Amino acid sequence: MEIHWNNENDKILVQRTDDHMAQTLKDVGERNLIELIKSIVQDDTVDIPLGDDCAVLDMGERYLLVSTDMISKQTHLCPAMSYKDIGWFVTAINLSDIAAKGGTPLGVLLAYGLSKDMPIADFKDIVKGADDCAKTYHSSIIGGDTKEHTDMVISGTSIGIVDKTEFMGRAGAKPDDIIVVTGELGKAASGFLSMQEGKTGDDLKGLIHPIPRIIEGRKLAKSKKVHCCIDVSDGLSTSLYELQRFNDVGFQIDYSKIPVDPMLVMHTDQRALDNYLLHFGGEYELLACIPSDDLSYLQKKITPTPLSMIGKVTKDTAITIKKEGTIKPLENKGYEHFSRQEFS
Amino acid sequence: MEIHWNNENDKILVQRTDDHMAQTLKDVGERNLIELIKSIVQDDTVDIPLGDDCAVLDMGERYLLVSTDMISKQTHLCPAMSYKDIGWFVTAINLSDIAAKGGTPLGVLLAYGLSKDMPIADFKDIVKGADDCAKTYHSSIIGGDTKEHTDMVISGTSIGIVDKTEFMGRAGAKPDDIIVVTGELGKAASGFLSMQEGKTGDDLKGLIHPIPRIIEGRKLAKSKKVHCCIDVSDGLSTSLYELQRFNDVGFQIDYSKIPVDPMLVMHTDQRALDNYLLHFGGEYELLACIPSDDLSYLQKKITPTPLSMIGKVTKDTAITIKKEGTIKPLENKGYEHFSRQEFS
Repeated sequence: MEIHWNNENDKILVQRTDDHMAQTLKDVGERNLIELIKSIVQDDTVDIPLGDDCAVLDMGERYLLVSTDMISKQTHLCPAMSYKDIGWFVTAINLSDIAAKGGTPLGVLLAYGLSKDMPIADFKDIVKGADDCAKTYHSSIIGGDTKEHTDMVISGTSIGIVDKTEFMGRAGAKPDDIIVVTGELGKAASGFLSMQEGKTGDDLKGLIHPIPRIIEGRKLAKSKKVHCCIDVSDGLSTSLYELQRFNDVGFQIDYSKIPVDPMLVMHTDQRALDNYLLHFGGEYELLACIPSDDLSYLQKKITPTPLSMIGKVTKDTAITIKKEGTIKPLENKGYEHFSRQEFS
Repeated sequence: MEIHWNNENDKILVQRTDDHMAQTLKDVGERNLIELIKSIVQDDTVDIPLGDDCAVLDMGERYLLVSTDMISKQTHLCPAMSYKDIGWFVTAINLSDIAAKGGTPLGVLLAYGLSKDMPIADFKDIVKGADDCAKTYHSSIIGGDTKEHTDMVISGTSIGIVDKTEFMGRAGAKPDDIIVVTGELGKAASGFLSMQEGKTGDDLKGLIHPIPRIIEGRKLAKSKKVHCCIDVSDGLSTSLYELQRFNDVGFQIDYSKIPVDPMLVMHTDQRALDNYLLHFGGEYELLACIPSDDLSYLQKKITPTPLSMIGKVTKDTAITIKKEGTIKPLENKGYEHFSRQEFS
C-alpha cells in the first residue's frame, strides 16, 4: 500500500545521488533498500528468492505464502477512516499479497503499537474491522501482539497456501502474452480526490475499503493459465517495472483499454486523469500476463468481476504506453517510500 | 519481550477500574486486551485457540507455527544497543516463540518502520544482525516490508514447523509434574543493572543479546516427555500465571532451586534480587512441566545447556513460592503493556 498523504501538486520529484554520496534511506528509496536486504540475507536454499511481496516456502506439494505489511497513522491512514476501516484496511492489504499468488488464506496476525490512552471502544472497532475482513475471505485473525506506542502502528502478517501447480509468481511472462487486470482502476485515486474535496461516506470507499482479490486470485490460479501475477498496489507503472525485474520482456499498455472507475473521470481533467490512472497506488486489483487465447475463458471464469485486456507483453524490454496512435515510454512514477518525491 | 525502560523505583503500581469505568487501553492492560481480541475474532475451527504466543495451524501431520512481535525505539530498545544488536534482538525474540513450541524455524520476516534520515550504514547493520541471528539457528530472513516512520518500529514474524507428536503447547501440566528451566535466570536483569551503572560491552549481553532456545526446544520436543512449555520472556511470575490460564493446576516454586546468573547476585541486595529474579522480563529461557522421573534423562538430552528443577505442579491452583521453609503466594508482577505500573 503506497499512498502518500502529502500530495499537493502535479510534479514527481525524485532525487537520486551517486552511490558514494548515498548516506540515508531517502537517498536510495525503498526498492534499492530491498535489493540491499537481499544482498545481505540471500539464502540459496529457498525456492523463490526474496524480493517478492510474499515469502514462499516449500511444503512438499504446496507452497506456504507469508507476507507482512506495516501501516502507521503517519503515512497510511487518512482522517476519514473510522477505526473499523483501519482494521479492514490493514487486513485487506495483507490478504492482497496472498491473492496475487493464487493462495487460499490460512490466517492473519496483527501486531499493534497503540497509545495507552486509546479508548477501548476504538480498539474494539479496529479488531472488529479486521475480523470482518478476514471472515469475508473465509479466513480469521489467528494471532498478534499488542505493544505501547505513541503513534498508531499496525503490522499485519498474512499466511496462505497454494498448490505448486497453481502458484502464480512474478516470473513467467512471455512475449505475445496479453496483460489483463481485474475490476477497474482509479478507485483509490477517486476516493482520494473525494476526500480532498471534503466528501465522506461511500465516495471514499475505493480508497479506504480495499477489496483483496482473493476469490479472483483463486479462480485465476485454478485455471493454471496465468504466467505471472502481481497486485497493482504501488500503481500501474510501478507494478509493471516490478514485474520486469523478474522477466526479460517489455510491456506495452494500450491506454484506451484501461477500465477506468467512472467516478475518477468526473473528478479530474485529462492530464491529471492520466497521472492518477497510471501511477497512483492503493489499488488492489490483480494484473496478470496470460496467453491471448485464454482471455475469454478466464473472463468467464472470474465472472462477475470483469477481466480486461490492457496491453501486451513484448520481446523488446521497454515499458511503453500506446495512446492515440503514439507509443511513448511509460515512466515509473508510483509512490516509493524513502524517496524525495511528490505526487498529484 | 516485556521490558519497560522507565524502571525507576521498587513499586508495582497497577490501577484497575471497574468495567463500566474502563475507557482506555491503560485501564485494562495487555492481557485483558488479548481476551478482548479473542472474544471478537474467535474461530472455532482452529485447533489451538488464540491467546498463545504462537498461532498454530493444522498442516496434516505437522503444525505450522506463526508468531509476531513488535519492538520500537520508544519501549524496547536501550541506548546501549548497536544497530546489529537491534537486528539480532528482534529476530531472537521472534524465534523464541517457535522454540517454546519445540518448532524448527522456517524463516523470519521483518517489517520496518524507519526514519528516512536513517544512515544506510545503520540500516545495513540492523539487517546484518537479523541475518546473523536467523542463520545461527539455521533459518533465514525470508521477507519483509520497509516503510517510513519517525520512530523506529520493527515488527517481526517467525514461521516454524513441528510434528504434532512433538508439539509443546501451553496446556498439559499435571499435578506432580516438576517445573524445569533451561539455563540461568536473571541475565536480562543483570544486563539492565549494568546499563544503569553506565557499563557497556559484555556486561549487557544478557539484556541486549538474547539467545532463543531453539536447539534446546527441539531436543525437549523430540523427547516427547514435555507436558507444556513457555518462554519466560514476561518474567517468571507472569509466565506461571500465563500457564495457569491453560491448566487447572497450581505451581510451587522452590526459591533455593532457581539457577541464578552469578552477575545478578553481585549487582544487588537480597530484596531487589528476589524482585528481579521472580518478575523481571526479557529472559528467553524455556520453562517446562515434565514428569519428575524424566528429569535426568532430559538433563542429559539438552547438555551442555543446564536444565534445573525449580518447583512442582500442584493440584491446589495457587501459585506459590517456598523460601526458607515458608510458602507464600507468588504475585503476578511481570511487566504488562498498557498497565500503569513501574518496576525495579
